[in-house]
Amino acid sequence: MPYYIGGLVDDVSSLVARTPEQFRDQGIEVHTRHNVESIDVERRDVTVRNLDTGDVRREPFDQLVIATGAEAVRPDLPNIDTDGIYEMSWMHDMEAVERDLANHDVKRAVVVGGGYIGIEMAEAFHLRGISTTLIHSGETLMANLDENMGELINAALIDAGIKLVTGQRASGFETGAGRVRGVVTDDASYPADIVVLGIGTQPRSRLAQEAGIPTGVSGGIIVDERMRTPIDGIWAAGDCTEMLHLVSGEAVSIALGTIANKQGRVCGINLGGGEATFPGVLGTAITKFLDTEIARTGLCERELRRLDMDYVAGRIESSTKSGYYPGSSKMTVKLTAERESGRIVGGQIVGGPGSGKRIDTIVTALASGMTLLELEYLDLSYAPPFSPVWDPVQIAARITNQQR
Amino acid sequence: MPYYIGGLVDDVSSLVARTPEQFRDQGIEVHTRHNVESIDVERRDVTVRNLDTGDVRREPFDQLVIATGAEAVRPDLPNIDTDGIYEMSWMHDMEAVERDLANHDVKRAVVVGGGYIGIEMAEAFHLRGISTTLIHSGETLMANLDENMGELINAALIDAGIKLVTGQRASGFETGAGRVRGVVTDDASYPADIVVLGIGTQPRSRLAQEAGIPTGVSGGIIVDERMRTPIDGIWAAGDCTEMLHLVSGEAVSIALGTIANKQGRVCGINLGGGEATFPGVLGTAITKFLDTEIARTGLCERELRRLDMDYVAGRIESSTKSGYYPGSSKMTVKLTAERESGRIVGGQIVGGPGSGKRIDTIVTALASGMTLLELEYLDLSYAPPFSPVWDPVQIAARITNQQR
Repeated sequence: MPYYIGGLVDDVSSLVARTPEQFRDQGIEVHTRHNVESIDVERRDVTVRNLDTGDVRREPFDQLVIATGAEAVRPDLPNIDTDGIYEMSWMHDMEAVERDLANHDVKRAVVVGGGYIGIEMAEAFHLRGISTTLIHSGETLMANLDENMGELINAALIDAGIKLVTGQRASGFETGAGRVRGVVTDDASYPADIVVLGIGTQPRSRLAQEAGIPTGVSGGIIVDERMRTPIDGIWAAGDCTEMLHLVSGEAVSIALGTIANKQGRVCGINLGGGEATFPGVLGTAITKFLDTEIARTGLCERELRRLDMDYVAGRIESSTKSGYYPGSSKMTVKLTAERESGRIVGGQIVGGPGSGKRIDTIVTALASGMTLLELEYLDLSYAPPFSPVWDPVQIAARITNQQR
Repeated sequence: MPYYIGGLVDDVSSLVARTPEQFRDQGIEVHTRHNVESIDVERRDVTVRNLDTGDVRREPFDQLVIATGAEAVRPDLPNIDTDGIYEMSWMHDMEAVERDLANHDVKRAVVVGGGYIGIEMAEAFHLRGISTTLIHSGETLMANLDENMGELINAALIDAGIKLVTGQRASGFETGAGRVRGVVTDDASYPADIVVLGIGTQPRSRLAQEAGIPTGVSGGIIVDERMRTPIDGIWAAGDCTEMLHLVSGEAVSIALGTIANKQGRVCGINLGGGEATFPGVLGTAITKFLDTEIARTGLCERELRRLDMDYVAGRIESSTKSGYYPGSSKMTVKLTAERESGRIVGGQIVGGPGSGKRIDTIVTALASGMTLLELEYLDLSYAPPFSPVWDPVQIAARITNQQR
């Protein structure tokens, strides 16, 4: 959605993976504008309201899949329901923002929250030529990166002319003529013609919870690796579930399309009589702000301290290509590893074009239990248009290993 | 060197990793324009000729490192020593080509050989606006990729207007006025104002061989994983050595900077009293032709057949980014795996910008003994500017697994 608002994607329909008609062509009945109001686990049916007619009926099931996704966290702040304040949860949020930009004289945007959505929406408004302020509660952007990586993202936004406000939280909104006019924090007030909130998500699991389907510490629906809830014949997949973090061993809920898509596939295969398992997650994520790519996987220092693990961390600056090759740009890599074994437990990357996807090398090394030394001498690809002679990931492995 | 000739790199000095002066500043004596003519393993000295004065002297050693590199294969063809025929082995080859382009009316270039050097030099001449013919003995370019991947590279060159001649070998050269005028094959003759040969390399190991230092089946100097030759106090590193291919288990000699650099480091650490080991190679390589990126690792079908391994192979076409994101381009991935275990044994990629470096994910999976199924469900990074929801490498893993 941010890429549509930013003008990078023209065609709304290209954002729809599959239409109701395409489902119907495959013999799958789809009911849009229908809301499931409750699930009766004993009677094996769901109660559905047709949002257009108001009719309520029961729909029986043999097998039920809950795929209710995640919902944006929406704090109970003064004036939060004023026009001009949006989240980026649904296509209609995106369309509403687009309509606002077309119909109102939007000169100043304020984005609240410095995670993926916040950074991507700041980029979108910036690309539309709108003066943009981003308010973030932490000191550095992207709370799932360490401070000495997040500060590079801060710099990228500031360099582009985004007004970055850190260490402040939105505490309310100023209004006028029925629309938002500003975002208020404990310290100041920031004028705004439009506001986007990107302060986090949570599993949309209340429907399941009310039906007695167990949810876990993360708030997500509990499923096994075949996507079965503890209740026979009831399945769940995607952002509404709780999943295993393979490095920390903790139960987490991470709302990302690639995880949801894999879980959906696993669920479908099992429902169809096949056998598939979802192994869990590593906490991998990637995004960008203009030319600055941002990626992470596993556990960062912040998380390792919380888990009281004995770790080492190393951070290096290198370049995306051989220094003399045109278009080479700066790339910073940070690795974390168990001190004793040298096993990699996390990676973070911030850098120019070509940096971000290198996280996948770290993901694969981490998933397979590789040590820093093994990564250092791995036969990774090199040619001047692609990398320095030692890939930055390998230089990071060496420097991190020296901390042990 | 091709990037310099192609005009992508302006400054020759940026291609020099370290000058003799920089070595001297570190207390390392460097003798350029000196040729070692023989090594006396018993007497522990080398015989050196000063190429400027002609003086010959003996230089004693306690420890000796042989790092003589690789040399271009130079077939004994009629008129091969004519002016205007070059290999890309040394900086002075590059400077000679550059001088030719400045001083002669070079309208037509012929490149002989469709490996890395051939493709990169075809790109370089093309970028200089020179009509370019590439003559390759096989039917598809890059002999270390399978035919159904190599044909994509053929298409990229043809699309750019390179005249591609496959299934022919140079058998001689036409000359006139003291310069090359054409390349002759068994089938035809191709006019040329300049010719570059890129038909392979071999370890430059004759000096070692003559001294009784053992070389292996590949022609490279035999070293252990600490870079020691079988003769006490004599070491070797880089393109002149023979190395272990970790997938085939064969002894090979691969002339690539990243391998040479790693071996040099291992050798230096061990010489200095530390301990380091070079684990071997996977046959990883990467290059590009204009916007088409080309990468490979492990064993392709061609090699698997030769080794008589029971394997599966799968090839998919996907895109570098989400289809709707600007700049997304086509990307073809091929994987090979052991049929019985599903363990990955090789990967090949041909595609648009952002394709090539994804080989590192396959490299890391292969090195750690991952199966296709494990790769399919790995928590790789996804966001629309970087990848489809399933990374192309994972789609390839799924499709290849279905062949088992």
